[in-house]
Amino acid sequence: MKKIGILGSTGSIGTQTLDIVRENRDLKVTALAVDSNIELLERQVREFMPNLVCVYREDKAKLFKEMVKDLPVKVVTKMDGLIECATESEAETMITAMVGMIGIQPTIEAINAGKNIALANKETLVTAGHIIMPLIKEKGVALLPVDSEHSAIFQSLHGEDRKKAYKILLTASGGPFRGRKLIELKGKTPKDALKHPNWSMGQKITIDSATMVNKGLEVMEAAWLFDMSVDQIQVVVHPQSIIHSMVEYVDGSIIAQLGVPDMKLPIQYALFYPERRPLTAGERVDFTQLSQLTFEVPDMDTFFGLRLAYEAGRCGGSMPTVYNAANEWAVAEFLKGKIEFLMIPTMIEKAMQQHKMIANPSLKEILNIEQVTYDFVRGFTESGL
Amino acid sequence: MKKIGILGSTGSIGTQTLDIVRENRDLKVTALAVDSNIELLERQVREFMPNLVCVYREDKAKLFKEMVKDLPVKVVTKMDGLIECATESEAETMITAMVGMIGIQPTIEAINAGKNIALANKETLVTAGHIIMPLIKEKGVALLPVDSEHSAIFQSLHGEDRKKAYKILLTASGGPFRGRKLIELKGKTPKDALKHPNWSMGQKITIDSATMVNKGLEVMEAAWLFDMSVDQIQVVVHPQSIIHSMVEYVDGSIIAQLGVPDMKLPIQYALFYPERRPLTAGERVDFTQLSQLTFEVPDMDTFFGLRLAYEAGRCGGSMPTVYNAANEWAVAEFLKGKIEFLMIPTMIEKAMQQHKMIANPSLKEILNIEQVTYDFVRGFTESGL
Repeated sequence: MKKIGILGSTGSIGTQTLDIVRENRDLKVTALAVDSNIELLERQVREFMPNLVCVYREDKAKLFKEMVKDLPVKVVTKMDGLIECATESEAETMITAMVGMIGIQPTIEAINAGKNIALANKETLVTAGHIIMPLIKEKGVALLPVDSEHSAIFQSLHGEDRKKAYKILLTASGGPFRGRKLIELKGKTPKDALKHPNWSMGQKITIDSATMVNKGLEVMEAAWLFDMSVDQIQVVVHPQSIIHSMVEYVDGSIIAQLGVPDMKLPIQYALFYPERRPLTAGERVDFTQLSQLTFEVPDMDTFFGLRLAYEAGRCGGSMPTVYNAANEWAVAEFLKGKIEFLMIPTMIEKAMQQHKMIANPSLKEILNIEQVTYDFVRGFTESGL
Repeated sequence: MKKIGILGSTGSIGTQTLDIVRENRDLKVTALAVDSNIELLERQVREFMPNLVCVYREDKAKLFKEMVKDLPVKVVTKMDGLIECATESEAETMITAMVGMIGIQPTIEAINAGKNIALANKETLVTAGHIIMPLIKEKGVALLPVDSEHSAIFQSLHGEDRKKAYKILLTASGGPFRGRKLIELKGKTPKDALKHPNWSMGQKITIDSATMVNKGLEVMEAAWLFDMSVDQIQVVVHPQSIIHSMVEYVDGSIIAQLGVPDMKLPIQYALFYPERRPLTAGERVDFTQLSQLTFEVPDMDTFFGLRLAYEAGRCGGSMPTVYNAANEWAVAEFLKGKIEFLMIPTMIEKAMQQHKMIANPSLKEILNIEQVTYDFVRGFTESGL
């Protein structure tokens, strides 16, 4: 019996992880954490009977306790509760699938408690890779990527000597605005941006796909995960999302991982690594139907959020935190209809321009820079630009 | 210092293997064997100074002894000499790159002598897989595929649990007649058939590409190498020859190996496995230039030699020997301008139809069936069809 905890169980990755738990009787969920969706959490708790659940929002936690008072489950709240969940004693592996920088501290505590990490929270490595990676090594735990691209890279490196990896080819669907020029992206609405061609995901990540900021975050994340510089990571636009990423070796050989666009595959791979299990009801790539795979160079003038990610990654230190926080705020404002689409990368650029980089920031500094960046972009927005 | 022997050193694989030896000072050639090209062999012997060389044709061997009488190299001939070469005491690995069934016996003797086999002779496994594979296991030597497709499959299986491989996707360029219908292949000349779109290879294998019999032989070879039935091996026509083959696992994940069409890559991989070394002067796949990879279902009505390979593979026993021998004879006749292109698969079909399959044939039986098949197709040709 393999015991796991899920931080972010009501989101897209969380619910799909539970689908896999449902299909594999030797998996047991011992801890669940959510922000506020207590209706779905109640159904999850009644089905999977964890020992411990965290509802981050205190008011919702109070309500939730009432809802499950007939069950032998402990309910905790706020950051203390989230950390309690992340370090729940029976869990061997924590799936970190919460959105945003809130995931960093619980992830650190989970590693400190000796848990393996199935990483589905990009911000953790983007902003705190310099803290997480040495800690993973020190504690001797496994760090398993859940993102489909990083899982593909991980699979393409499996069994190989990582020192012989020459570069990573990180594929990108290009999002709903692929092929558009900068001028055409003016006035794009949340409704336009939420139409992702291949993947069904949460709102934040779907907007990040439209700006290609998501790919920028993935470049920075891959650099930490696979110990490479961002300039060893080449983004290749591949609209069909069949090749999930590739690794090129010193001999010119490229190993790639392909599959249908279905997050269950990388989630299951992370849960059972290195074992592969049949994926129940999973579709398969059918080469009798698939006529072509196409490739394009990313347009970094139009999708300049991606160019900025390379700049933030090269700069390092606290700069990726600024990149991420400015984007997080801007996406939220865009989804509320308060700013226009192109203001998202513009705000990232402005925030990066005004930031004085700190090398090796502590977690406290990272979280402080996040707030300072929020304040900056808020002020920038309110000044009427 | 890694010591190797090359059986078939003046052919396409042999000369490229020597290019790699030239670039890697820790490789030493101790044995070379050729059929009859003594002019090139002389240059090779003077450059690489092996201990032992075999010139299979006795008259040429006599001439060759004179040519190198100033050198401390032993010259041997005929099958006894070829076996002496295959078992040369210093060599750790034998590259078996001779064309045709002549390669089987020396390969068996090399395995018996504890040599690792870098296999570039398709006939060995196609006709004698049931003898070779148990022997490889018994002697505990490595069997490393050199063919680009089999190397790709081997690389895609590296580090994985082979029992979790669900099927093999064997790619095929489709050859110079891809897209043509049966009727259009009537009257095709050796000159037409020798224009391979991607690969520069020997004449025999280039004709085999044009008929897709080469892919048929590869299907049967892959079945032995990777312990699968031929029906678990799906041929995918992929005209760009960038994806060299793929393995699909039980979870729906596909691992693929890609590279420019250059035999040096799989040869070098086999020589240094599992180490990857930089490939000097090797080109790389450039995804900023490569716009698409396309896929087609093979047309087994037009290229019915491929369909017959599945039939021979399913039947097993001595049937693949008949398939191979009939093809070998027919290709030689076609190259001499004596029969027309479509007679190649037709002769295979006729030979298979008249053959009474023997299960688990001995080497002697295999070689006898080869001769009987030659006689049959000769008679068939001479009868005026």
